[in-house]
Amino acid sequence: MQRVGFVGLGLMGAPMAENIARGGFPLTVFNRTASKARSLEALGAKVASSPKEVAAASQVVITMLADASAVEAVLTGADGLLAGGRPGMVLMDMSTVSPAQSRRIASEVAGHGWMTLDAPVFGSTGPAKEGTLGILVGGEKDVFEAHREILSKMGKHLYYFGPNGSGATAKLCFNLMVAAQVAGLAEAMALGAKSGLDLDLLGQAILASPVASTLVQRKVPLIVGRDFAAAFPLKHMHKDLGLMIDTGHELGVPLPVTGEVHELFTAAKACGHGDQDFAAVFLQLLQMAGLSTNPG
Amino acid sequence: MQRVGFVGLGLMGAPMAENIARGGFPLTVFNRTASKARSLEALGAKVASSPKEVAAASQVVITMLADASAVEAVLTGADGLLAGGRPGMVLMDMSTVSPAQSRRIASEVAGHGWMTLDAPVFGSTGPAKEGTLGILVGGEKDVFEAHREILSKMGKHLYYFGPNGSGATAKLCFNLMVAAQVAGLAEAMALGAKSGLDLDLLGQAILASPVASTLVQRKVPLIVGRDFAAAFPLKHMHKDLGLMIDTGHELGVPLPVTGEVHELFTAAKACGHGDQDFAAVFLQLLQMAGLSTNPG
Amino acid sequence: MQRVGFVGLGLMGAPMAENIARGGFPLTVFNRTASKARSLEALGAKVASSPKEVAAASQVVITMLADASAVEAVLTGADGLLAGGRPGMVLMDMSTVSPAQSRRIASEVAGHGWMTLDAPVFGSTGPAKEGTLGILVGGEKDVFEAHREILSKMGKHLYYFGPNGSGATAKLCFNLMVAAQVAGLAEAMALGAKSGLDLDLLGQAILASPVASTLVQRKVPLIVGRDFAAAFPLKHMHKDLGLMIDTGHELGVPLPVTGEVHELFTAAKACGHGDQDFAAVFLQLLQMAGLSTNPG
Amino acid sequence: MQRVGFVGLGLMGAPMAENIARGGFPLTVFNRTASKARSLEALGAKVASSPKEVAAASQVVITMLADASAVEAVLTGADGLLAGGRPGMVLMDMSTVSPAQSRRIASEVAGHGWMTLDAPVFGSTGPAKEGTLGILVGGEKDVFEAHREILSKMGKHLYYFGPNGSGATAKLCFNLMVAAQVAGLAEAMALGAKSGLDLDLLGQAILASPVASTLVQRKVPLIVGRDFAAAFPLKHMHKDLGLMIDTGHELGVPLPVTGEVHELFTAAKACGHGDQDFAAVFLQLLQMAGLSTNPG
Repeated sequence: MQRVGFVGLGLMGAPMAENIARGGFPLTVFNRTASKARSLEALGAKVASSPKEVAAASQVVITMLADASAVEAVLTGADGLLAGGRPGMVLMDMSTVSPAQSRRIASEVAGHGWMTLDAPVFGSTGPAKEGTLGILVGGEKDVFEAHREILSKMGKHLYYFGPNGSGATAKLCFNLMVAAQVAGLAEAMALGAKSGLDLDLLGQAILASPVASTLVQRKVPLIVGRDFAAAFPLKHMHKDLGLMIDTGHELGVPLPVTGEVHELFTAAKACGHGDQDFAAVFLQLLQMAGLSTNPG
Repeated sequence: MQRVGFVGLGLMGAPMAENIARGGFPLTVFNRTASKARSLEALGAKVASSPKEVAAASQVVITMLADASAVEAVLTGADGLLAGGRPGMVLMDMSTVSPAQSRRIASEVAGHGWMTLDAPVFGSTGPAKEGTLGILVGGEKDVFEAHREILSKMGKHLYYFGPNGSGATAKLCFNLMVAAQVAGLAEAMALGAKSGLDLDLLGQAILASPVASTLVQRKVPLIVGRDFAAAFPLKHMHKDLGLMIDTGHELGVPLPVTGEVHELFTAAKACGHGDQDFAAVFLQLLQMAGLSTNPG
Repeated sequence: MQRVGFVGLGLMGAPMAENIARGGFPLTVFNRTASKARSLEALGAKVASSPKEVAAASQVVITMLADASAVEAVLTGADGLLAGGRPGMVLMDMSTVSPAQSRRIASEVAGHGWMTLDAPVFGSTGPAKEGTLGILVGGEKDVFEAHREILSKMGKHLYYFGPNGSGATAKLCFNLMVAAQVAGLAEAMALGAKSGLDLDLLGQAILASPVASTLVQRKVPLIVGRDFAAAFPLKHMHKDLGLMIDTGHELGVPLPVTGEVHELFTAAKACGHGDQDFAAVFLQLLQMAGLSTNPG
Repeated sequence: MQRVGFVGLGLMGAPMAENIARGGFPLTVFNRTASKARSLEALGAKVASSPKEVAAASQVVITMLADASAVEAVLTGADGLLAGGRPGMVLMDMSTVSPAQSRRIASEVAGHGWMTLDAPVFGSTGPAKEGTLGILVGGEKDVFEAHREILSKMGKHLYYFGPNGSGATAKLCFNLMVAAQVAGLAEAMALGAKSGLDLDLLGQAILASPVASTLVQRKVPLIVGRDFAAAFPLKHMHKDLGLMIDTGHELGVPLPVTGEVHELFTAAKACGHGDQDFAAVFLQLLQMAGLSTNPG
């Protein structure tokens, strides 16, 4: 069994790493905030004191981090993964980064003899715990096949899309739909609110209708109850929207609706909603409609 | 049992009227294209030769038409519904019109002593046949209650939103989400296409993910197969988007994302996609990305 | 010399009518607020007590009103223009209305034997006083020629575009550019503001640059000084933007940038800036950027 | 008199460098395509064979290049400016780059003891030849003052905005207005075209109106004549729009209109208009309106 390293034990990363430990893989983990590694230790994982130590102990290293700079930061430097690794190792980056960033990372670690899979996921903390995430993979086909078992501990649906960067692209496609669905929900609710409709009833109708995706089911109660404790902070979706726009810009794909959603999220973040769940874009629309954003 | 009239036997109207006939209500129907009334005749409905005749034979008249002008056209004139009706009658308009148009219709027929329910629906031809539509109702509460039984023949979910026009508003809120979800899907697929992803595989991933609403499930195969035989013609959604924008304009609700989708549909219609299913907005995006819109 | 009637003595209408009076044309005027007719009376104009009376006294009637409903209101009814007019008369509507509205008005008065010129203007109150407006004319060519002298009293530049509605179209084209230039100025200034640039200096640079149209020259000081006393109220531009969007929708011309500006103005109006000059869209952008809208 | 170096002898750079030579400053120039240096040689400038040689011969080095990567490329490497320079030198970057890129460049050369002014310009090739450009300056105030004479050879209007990056910001603000004005003009002309207006006449009206900036005056004939020989290639404006959006994203300034223009330019570039003048965005709108893009 491959020796696995895991860096980034956040809301998603921790349960993903736990499923690898439970799956019987020898596991070494690292997190900037060391306390988050406790649950992993209880499952038999070794807690390293630096990314370098993780790499030294592993054949495959998984990163699940906030953005490309964070990946860059754990890769490089005296205490970085590359400093502790050896040629022939595999980096499996499951963070949401742009295809261009993903290819840049792959090319950088290739210079040290590593191979890379970009393997971002869809699904929230529930599927992360149950090991039923969707995983969107880019990289060499045989590298993917060789690590299918590890991936299967975290995800139920594995999709192999092609060369490095294509998993990252697929993730942006998916997140684009997530943002559009929630922005649409927020505009519908704002239109309902200023029209004087009962939002609770409107929410019920939406939930019984053909637009009621799992995502919409999760967000309707947040909007109706005006409770935006962050499942997925708006500032993170704002970052992802920026990656989509940059990618469309480079490839030559106009994304007018996404561009619009991006600007709306820029406003929402600038107006103080960055740390709320991204469904709080509803509050931004209320404000722009001249309505109070207070409940009731 | 109330004597029911039904005007507008299109893809949605015909099965809705059939369910009323099967429900045992005495039914008189009219359609501009008379041949469409055959199936109703077989179920025992009377086929009238004018809207006036429908009104003369009925206590409640249901209209299910393309837009507000079409409703206006069957109401007025020597052969119109109002010419054949009597004070105390009820108009149940199930067409998709704007709240302002809905209130104008209600006010016009009120001048002849009629009452009105606006009662547009969600759900496609499948639920229309099964009598499991969602129905979004505006009008007097007691008028709604008095016609609950008729509505129940057509729909499983009845939502009473308040005074005239509020059913129409709720329908626009719902259709706004429909348009945003499909526009988002189309942009995701266009980004995937120019990135060189396998769209069939991307579609599979989307269908396994939290964004896979019933609507998205229906549209993914159309886009992947580039087959846009119209379930819901793009030109009709373009009309509905215009109603949303006008309503937002009047009420003072900015709908930036919807405004964007509206302009995209204007382009798609102008470029020849008006009679295709509205998921053909994907082809418009391909063209704007400099890609061929031909399959394969 | 033709006997001229003039209805609508607002900020633009009053000086325009005065130039006709000074030009020697026998003039009868009407305004809902009668006091506004004083200056005209001093120039020898007759003040009528109703639109009907204006029509009875005139061969040509000019309307310069807020929107199509206002034109409709002075045309119809017992006291309306049509009630006082005769076949062979000419309506010269100089209001900003949509091409569709303009053609509807032309068709309505044609039913009474009147002919119509749509003749909206560009230029603000300064050129209105000096009689140097631009006039964008639609209607029969010979009707235009027959009234060239009257038009010349109000405007220096006369443009004949073609059949009824084409003057209205040209005006929308012009106003579209006005809105886009001011929205662009406002975004540039908002970007400068949040970047910490000295807006006074940025304004000076803009005014020395190739983007410094007369319009931009007028609006820069309003934005720098945050003084939005209305030269042209935002709510009126919001109405005009709605006409553009409706016209693009009907004709099949996507106007994505204008659609965007429209939604921004919807927000600005909903947030209380409707009665300020339309350059106050800058304040709306500041708010959306999380900045204080207070001066200093 | 300071010894000046100049790298980047394009359409703008060449006449700017010539004005420095004519102004009596000892000048050393470099361009990747050496033939472009001929006119400078004739004015007494030394032609270097590498950026390194330019730096070795100069106290101040001016760069006027396509983008930040191009600036980066001439700075670094064995033949780069930094390799040939000495502490105390000044880099005057007149390229259009983002504020973030500008600050990164300043910080990088500061590591070698250089100081930086960001000094992008407004005005086209005409003012470049006449030495009447506007120059938007960021950097240390005393560095600016010490180089005022050199700047004055190229520009008539000098604006000092503050620390490094603020000249770059002001340039983006200016270019934002340029893009918005031309996009507005293009939409107005597309609306006119599909309405059947005579575009030549519409152009005349626009040129006589308050929106007729110098920029609009230059672009109207291109659109009317459908001749888009590049004064300023669309792909460069597309790049600049990307910088604006990134800057708004980072600073938290929603730029909805600019975002829209950006997506429109992405489409125009993807559809083959990248090497035409950016007024060719008009052709993209024609195509989206279902019209032929051929003249006549």
